[in-house]
Amino acid sequence: MTAVLPLDRTYAEQLDAGDPLARFRDRFTRPADPSLIYLDGNSLGPLPLATQARIAEVVGAEWGEGLVRSWHGWVGLPREVGDLIGRHLVGAAPGQVLVSDSTTVNLFKLANAALDAQPGRRVIVTDDDNFPTDRYVLQGIAAQRGCELRMIHTDIDLGVSEEALLAALDQDVALVSLSHVAYRSGALADMRRITKLVHDAGALMLWDLCHSVGAVPIELDGSGADLAIGCTYKYLNAGPGSPAFLYVREEHIDRLRQPVWGWFGQNDQFAMGPSYDPVPGIEHFSAGTPQILGTVAVQEGTKLLAEAGIDRLRAKGIALTSYLIHLADEWLAPHGFRLASPRADARRGSHVTLHHREAWRISQALISAGVIGDYRTPDRLRLGPVPIATRFIDVWDALDRLRHIAAEETYKALPAEISRVT
Amino acid sequence: MTAVLPLDRTYAEQLDAGDPLARFRDRFTRPADPSLIYLDGNSLGPLPLATQARIAEVVGAEWGEGLVRSWHGWVGLPREVGDLIGRHLVGAAPGQVLVSDSTTVNLFKLANAALDAQPGRRVIVTDDDNFPTDRYVLQGIAAQRGCELRMIHTDIDLGVSEEALLAALDQDVALVSLSHVAYRSGALADMRRITKLVHDAGALMLWDLCHSVGAVPIELDGSGADLAIGCTYKYLNAGPGSPAFLYVREEHIDRLRQPVWGWFGQNDQFAMGPSYDPVPGIEHFSAGTPQILGTVAVQEGTKLLAEAGIDRLRAKGIALTSYLIHLADEWLAPHGFRLASPRADARRGSHVTLHHREAWRISQALISAGVIGDYRTPDRLRLGPVPIATRFIDVWDALDRLRHIAAEETYKALPAEISRVT
Repeated sequence: MTAVLPLDRTYAEQLDAGDPLARFRDRFTRPADPSLIYLDGNSLGPLPLATQARIAEVVGAEWGEGLVRSWHGWVGLPREVGDLIGRHLVGAAPGQVLVSDSTTVNLFKLANAALDAQPGRRVIVTDDDNFPTDRYVLQGIAAQRGCELRMIHTDIDLGVSEEALLAALDQDVALVSLSHVAYRSGALADMRRITKLVHDAGALMLWDLCHSVGAVPIELDGSGADLAIGCTYKYLNAGPGSPAFLYVREEHIDRLRQPVWGWFGQNDQFAMGPSYDPVPGIEHFSAGTPQILGTVAVQEGTKLLAEAGIDRLRAKGIALTSYLIHLADEWLAPHGFRLASPRADARRGSHVTLHHREAWRISQALISAGVIGDYRTPDRLRLGPVPIATRFIDVWDALDRLRHIAAEETYKALPAEISRVT
Repeated sequence: MTAVLPLDRTYAEQLDAGDPLARFRDRFTRPADPSLIYLDGNSLGPLPLATQARIAEVVGAEWGEGLVRSWHGWVGLPREVGDLIGRHLVGAAPGQVLVSDSTTVNLFKLANAALDAQPGRRVIVTDDDNFPTDRYVLQGIAAQRGCELRMIHTDIDLGVSEEALLAALDQDVALVSLSHVAYRSGALADMRRITKLVHDAGALMLWDLCHSVGAVPIELDGSGADLAIGCTYKYLNAGPGSPAFLYVREEHIDRLRQPVWGWFGQNDQFAMGPSYDPVPGIEHFSAGTPQILGTVAVQEGTKLLAEAGIDRLRAKGIALTSYLIHLADEWLAPHGFRLASPRADARRGSHVTLHHREAWRISQALISAGVIGDYRTPDRLRLGPVPIATRFIDVWDALDRLRHIAAEETYKALPAEISRVT
């Protein structure tokens, strides 16, 4: 999109009228306040009506009525829902994706498994703008194993530099762990090309898909990726603290062993035998009893995305964010805002980040004006339209409110001290 | 109780009439089939009505309406609910209990933390009848760290032998990990005395409370226990795959460090700083984003038990199980059943296990007769009355149906091959 696009609200209405996903907005609960605009689905996705009904059903009928007998149906869910994610969202053939634990715990399990499988190599590579939990977990693993954690420098607006990665790769590197879409800028990495670079150096590649899954088409099998993890409470709309998923490429499944030897990874689990004997297949990457309410929420969320279609979601995500950038260029740049995300559509996930030195106070003023985005350190306002639920008029209205806040400088009455939860 | 107790159903009705907890039965959903008897609360507890309502509220109002803003209330829940468990169920002063992950992952975190804190000692002690996930996790840790896992032999009817433990303790032992109530027999260990034995040998003591919490009064602070873990889907009635909890004694909290360095254990989490800097206090034993639906279910379940009172729950648990044993002695012993749990009330948790060489087929016939207990290897029928919800007439009816199955040998028509899920 370029500056010839109209700036009036009528144009946003026209875009909505032509949106093939418009009807999906009715599949979500809508806040009581009709003027509320939600641009933080990249932190916590909205509630699908089907998920609300399904959770009520699982609680009342399956737990309340079925009691322990319902485990016959629940026990296969982590793999079943993993396969659903694999088929519709991450390009993985069956048997390689498992819903399990949190992103953090899954990273811990897979990174340790990868390092065990690469004896003689003792370097982990990640980037200094990777999501905090990724950096901390890898730092902990490096400390525990006496490995080196090699941090490549990332431009926080543009994402991982392939040149910096290439310079960090040598024959000591066992594992490279990067985010597919950067949590702050939304920069989208080239999964296929980076995986190839990593493989050329003889290392394994682990992708964090938290900020891309459900928003960007992913081809794990096709890209050659070895391992991946991802969360489900963002674009998969599975609710607060819903379980994460992990992917292990088929050729690695039986040769890798994860460190948390739990009973849900045991062969013939209820024989309760004397020694750990990992079950063949992806299930040996699970650990303890899986959370069922969260897993069915992932199932419903994934089914909804599958119905919309990841290619249409991607097209709408690009349309929403490029429209947002267009309005920001026109309306906000004069007030000290600067785009802090890649401008090229193909290099960006589904959220847009704007730099402003007063980003904290502006983010608070924006919430008071009924627009929920979020603040990210040090001076970033992050706006994440939800491709399956956000309208173009929502983007127009949000940026219209934002330009008034910026022009009238009403945010200057707010406290400058940052007090944050999410 | 002795054999002078009456065997007629009227006596069970009298016990129910005098039960101070009788009214709590109405606080749970009741299966549509009124003849169904549930004696498997030690596997998956029944659904409290308050929990069903609370989950619906959290889904609809907090997630659906509040969206990401609700994290302001959610973020403190793991510690808040941990303190509630501490105060009402496990005898722990505030700030030492955290709701987090699964029992399996919590054991992995705490056992590694304990071993790091005991340099120079390289033996872990557990028992060969400990719950499978405990044995497997410790086996994995021993393999990864090059430690010795020393297994003491346990009589599967009587629980851990203090003599066997004593014989296994020496100056190389870093950590002892045992279950407070044995999953198969229900044998109850003497927490205070065993912890003292372990401390006398200079080791740390980690208790698995899965089969005791909510059924038996526990004094973690008072017993000197160093570490504990426990699950919430049994007597805490928090639903399938609800999160577990962990306890770290105050004096150890800041000197122990767990291995999964996740962002929920980070000081000033949303500063998203460059290096892991564990938050002071129990929260640094958390890892990734906590599951919220499960955590509120733990809160409701704990509140319900607190209202009933752990001492009254314990008294009722003893009354139910001793009555069950009495009927089993009278009715079932002649048909080849033998008690496979401690007979002394003070040495038993809230479930009773019966040995029969046809236990598998009998457990299936019993389910067909509307009584849900469970089978445990190799030849055990496990019956777990739920102190807060089970009536004495439920026990009478269940054992009456069981004696008919045994006498008429109807189970012999069933397949002998074991096919199990839970």
